[in-house]
Amino acid sequence: MEENEENQEPENQEILQDLSEQGKTEELVEMFEELPTMDVAEFMEDKPLEDIIEFFKKLDLVDQGRIFSDFTLDLQLNIFQSLDRRTFSRIFSKVFSDIRADLYQELTKEEQIELLPYLEKSVREDVIILSAYPPETAGGIMTTDFATIFADMNAAEALEKLRKDAPSKDMIYYIYVVDHSMVMKGLVTLKDLVMQHPSTKVAEMVNEFFVSAEVNEDRESVAQKIEKYDLIAVPVLNSLNQLVGVVSHEEAIDVIRKEETEDLEKFMGIMPSEDDEEYMATSSFHHFKKRVVWLVSLAAIGIISGMIINEHQGVLENFLILAMYMPMMAATGGNTGSQAATVVIRALSLGEISDRDWLKIVFKEVKISFMLSMCVALLTYLKIAFLSFHSLLPNGITMNFIGIIISLAIALQVITSAVLGAGLPLIVRRLGGDPAVVASPAITTLVDITGLLIYFTIASVALGVG
Amino acid sequence: MEENEENQEPENQEILQDLSEQGKTEELVEMFEELPTMDVAEFMEDKPLEDIIEFFKKLDLVDQGRIFSDFTLDLQLNIFQSLDRRTFSRIFSKVFSDIRADLYQELTKEEQIELLPYLEKSVREDVIILSAYPPETAGGIMTTDFATIFADMNAAEALEKLRKDAPSKDMIYYIYVVDHSMVMKGLVTLKDLVMQHPSTKVAEMVNEFFVSAEVNEDRESVAQKIEKYDLIAVPVLNSLNQLVGVVSHEEAIDVIRKEETEDLEKFMGIMPSEDDEEYMATSSFHHFKKRVVWLVSLAAIGIISGMIINEHQGVLENFLILAMYMPMMAATGGNTGSQAATVVIRALSLGEISDRDWLKIVFKEVKISFMLSMCVALLTYLKIAFLSFHSLLPNGITMNFIGIIISLAIALQVITSAVLGAGLPLIVRRLGGDPAVVASPAITTLVDITGLLIYFTIASVALGVG
Repeated sequence: MEENEENQEPENQEILQDLSEQGKTEELVEMFEELPTMDVAEFMEDKPLEDIIEFFKKLDLVDQGRIFSDFTLDLQLNIFQSLDRRTFSRIFSKVFSDIRADLYQELTKEEQIELLPYLEKSVREDVIILSAYPPETAGGIMTTDFATIFADMNAAEALEKLRKDAPSKDMIYYIYVVDHSMVMKGLVTLKDLVMQHPSTKVAEMVNEFFVSAEVNEDRESVAQKIEKYDLIAVPVLNSLNQLVGVVSHEEAIDVIRKEETEDLEKFMGIMPSEDDEEYMATSSFHHFKKRVVWLVSLAAIGIISGMIINEHQGVLENFLILAMYMPMMAATGGNTGSQAATVVIRALSLGEISDRDWLKIVFKEVKISFMLSMCVALLTYLKIAFLSFHSLLPNGITMNFIGIIISLAIALQVITSAVLGAGLPLIVRRLGGDPAVVASPAITTLVDITGLLIYFTIASVALGVG
Repeated sequence: MEENEENQEPENQEILQDLSEQGKTEELVEMFEELPTMDVAEFMEDKPLEDIIEFFKKLDLVDQGRIFSDFTLDLQLNIFQSLDRRTFSRIFSKVFSDIRADLYQELTKEEQIELLPYLEKSVREDVIILSAYPPETAGGIMTTDFATIFADMNAAEALEKLRKDAPSKDMIYYIYVVDHSMVMKGLVTLKDLVMQHPSTKVAEMVNEFFVSAEVNEDRESVAQKIEKYDLIAVPVLNSLNQLVGVVSHEEAIDVIRKEETEDLEKFMGIMPSEDDEEYMATSSFHHFKKRVVWLVSLAAIGIISGMIINEHQGVLENFLILAMYMPMMAATGGNTGSQAATVVIRALSLGEISDRDWLKIVFKEVKISFMLSMCVALLTYLKIAFLSFHSLLPNGITMNFIGIIISLAIALQVITSAVLGAGLPLIVRRLGGDPAVVASPAITTLVDITGLLIYFTIASVALGVG
C-alpha cells in the first residue's frame, strides 16, 4: 500500500512521451510493439480519443487487440461508441476472450444485437457463451485462449500444431490433451514437450492427475487452487469433462484482491456489492444502502446499553464519577474485541487455524488479554488517582476504593471482549458460515452491553446502591 | 473465505490413503511421482516422521526436493533434526532455492555451520547469498532457479542449452538473455523460441524493454509489477544490472496475502510483525506486544471523553436521560467513521481514487452520511418517543423537545464521523504516509470525543444548563 503504482516504470512512459512530443510517429508506433502492453495502454489512455484511433490505424490487428485488452472498461466503451461496427468488430475479434466477454456484457441489448452480425461465427459463439456464466464462477472469469493437442501425437507433431494454433493464444505454457470431443485427458507443459525427444508420444508424457475447476465452481475456490498448487493456469471443465476454458494466475490475483475487499467490507459492517464497483463510479445512494442496514441495526441494539444505564440511575446519581469512565470502558472493550476478531478471522481465512482448535485459541486469547487487562487497569487506576482524587464521595467511600472498582471492571471487560471477539468468528465458522460476517461494529456494540453490565454489577455490589 | 481449503482435491488424498492402507507401497510411491506436489506433501504431513523418511528413501532426489519444498517449515525443521547431515544435505541441494534459504535462516548458527561443509560449493554460495537479503525485499523472496541463454545463439542452440540446464530449473517459460558477466540484456519466452525458425538468432527475437526489479526493491512493489503487467515472473537485477534472481507469480500472491494481512492489522490497531508469523506459532506475549500500544494509548486518550462528561455534570444531573443515549452516540459515530475509512483506504490502496480527489470524496461522504444520519436520527427519535415518554423532566421541558435535541446531535455526529473517517486517510496519504495507519480504533476514539462535544454543546444550549 505504501508505494504509488504510477511510479513503477516511469522510463517507459517518458520514452513514449518524448517520441510523441517530437512528432516521431513511426518510432512511437515501433515502441508500441516493443514496450510492455500495460505501459502502452496507460500512455494512450491519457490521449484524446481521436489520437488513440489514429494510433490504432498504424498497428496490426493483433497489437490492437492486445493493447485494447489492457484499456479501462470506460475507454473500451468509448472506443466502441466512436467506431463504426465493422471496424470495431475487427479489433474486438483480437481482444482476449475474457475481456471481450466482460465488455460485451456492458453493452446495451441494442448494441449487442448491432455488433453480433459483424463477428465471425466462432467469435460470436465464444462471446455469447462466455457472457452467459455468472461473474463469480470459474466460467465468469475464464478465457478460451488455450492450446490443445491429442494424445496420439508425438512431441514433434504437438509442437507443429502449437506453431499453427498458438500465435493467437496468450497462454501456451500448459497444453491440454483432449480427445476429439474436447474431453480433457490430461496436461503437458511446454517444458515437457521441448525437453522430450521429438518422437516421444504425448501419451507417454501426459499428466493425468491435473488440478481442474468446474465451470460453476466459485471463483474464490478456483483462485485458491492456483495459489495452493502454484499453477500458471487451471483448466475449467463442464459436467461432461469437456475443456471449456482456462483461468490464469492473473485472474487469480484479481479474484484474491476482490475477495479481500469483500471480506474487509463485511468485517467493517458494509454489505459487499455483487458487481465489483469502484468508489467513485458507485452512486452515493448505493454507498448509503451498503452501509445503512448495519448502522441502523446496531444503533437499534444500542438501546440495550441505554436501558442498562437507565436501570442503574441510582448508582449513577450517587457516583457521577462512574459516568466519566463509561466511554473509556466501551471504547477499550470494542478495541480489544475487534483486535482479537481481526487476528482470528485472518488466521482462519489463511488456513493457519481451524475451528477445531477453538479451545486452544480461546485459552491463548485469555492469556493475551490478561496481560492487556493489567496494563489498562493500571492506567485507569493512575488516571483516577491523579485526576479525581479530590472529588467528594458520599457514605465515606474513598477515591482509592472507586479506583479499584473501576480498574477491576475494565480489566474484566478487556478479557471478556477478547474472548467474545475471538470466539464469535469460531462459532460462525463452526456453524458453516463465513467468519468475516462477524463484523467489528457488531462486536463493538455487543461488548458495549457486556461492558456496562460488568461495570454496574461490580459498582452496585461494591458501593451498595442499586 | 467461504470454502474450506481442505476439501479441494479430496480424491487425490483418498487415492493416497487407500494405497497406504492396503500396504501397496510401490503403487503409492508411483503416485507420489504423478500427483500434484502439494497433495503428496499434505498426505505425508499427517504421517509419523519415520514413515516420511521411509517414503523419501524410495523417491529419487529431484522428487524428494520437490515434495520437501511444499512441506511446512516446522516439518522441514523436524526432518533436518532427525536425519544425519550428509543425507539431509543431498535432499537440501534439490529443494527450491528460495525455500532452501528460508529454511537455512531458521537454523541456529551452530546448525548452519554443521550443514555447510556437506553442501556443494554452488549450493553453499547460493544459500548464503540468498539468506543475506532482508525478507521484505525482492532479494528476500527471489529464487535462483532460472534459465539463461546468450544473444549470439540461434533458437536451436538456445533450446539445446535449455535441455541441458533446465531439468533442474523450475521456471523456464521466461528465458533470460545475459552476457558473459551475467548482465541482463533482455528476455525471450519459451513460446518465442519454439515458434521461431531454429536458425533465428536470439538477438532478433529478444525483448529489451522488459519489466525488472531491483534486488533491494520492496517486495510489495515487485508483487505489484507482476500484477500490473500480468507476468509469470520478474527478473531481479543488482546495481550492475546483473541478473541475480527471479520472483515468480506464486511469490507475488504470497506477498499480496501478507501485505493485506499487514494492512488489516494496521487498520485494526495491531502492529504488524516483521516476520510473518502464524497465529499459533506466535507467543501470547508477542501477540500482547502487538496489541498493547494502541490499546493503552487510546484508553489514555479516552480520558478526554471522561473530562468532557465531567465538565457537563450539571446538565447530566438535571437530565439523566442524556446518559442513556451516550453509548449509542459513541457507537454509531465509531461505526460510521470506520465504514467511511474502510471504503476510502481500500479505494486508495487499489488505486481507484487519489488524494487529489479529496474534495470530491469528502463531498460524496457528506451526501452518503446525510442519508445515513436521517435514518439514525429518525430511529433515535422513535426510541425516545416509545421508551422514555413518561419520564419526568424539570423546568417544563417536554420529552418531545429532548427527543429532537438528541436526534439532532446524533445526526450531526454521523456526518462528522463520516467526514473524519474519510478525511484522515486522505490527509495521511497527502503527507506521504500509509493511509492504513489511520486505525479504526483511533477513529472510534476520536469520534467519541467529537460526539460528546456535539452532544453536550447542543444539550447545554437548548436546555439552558451548563
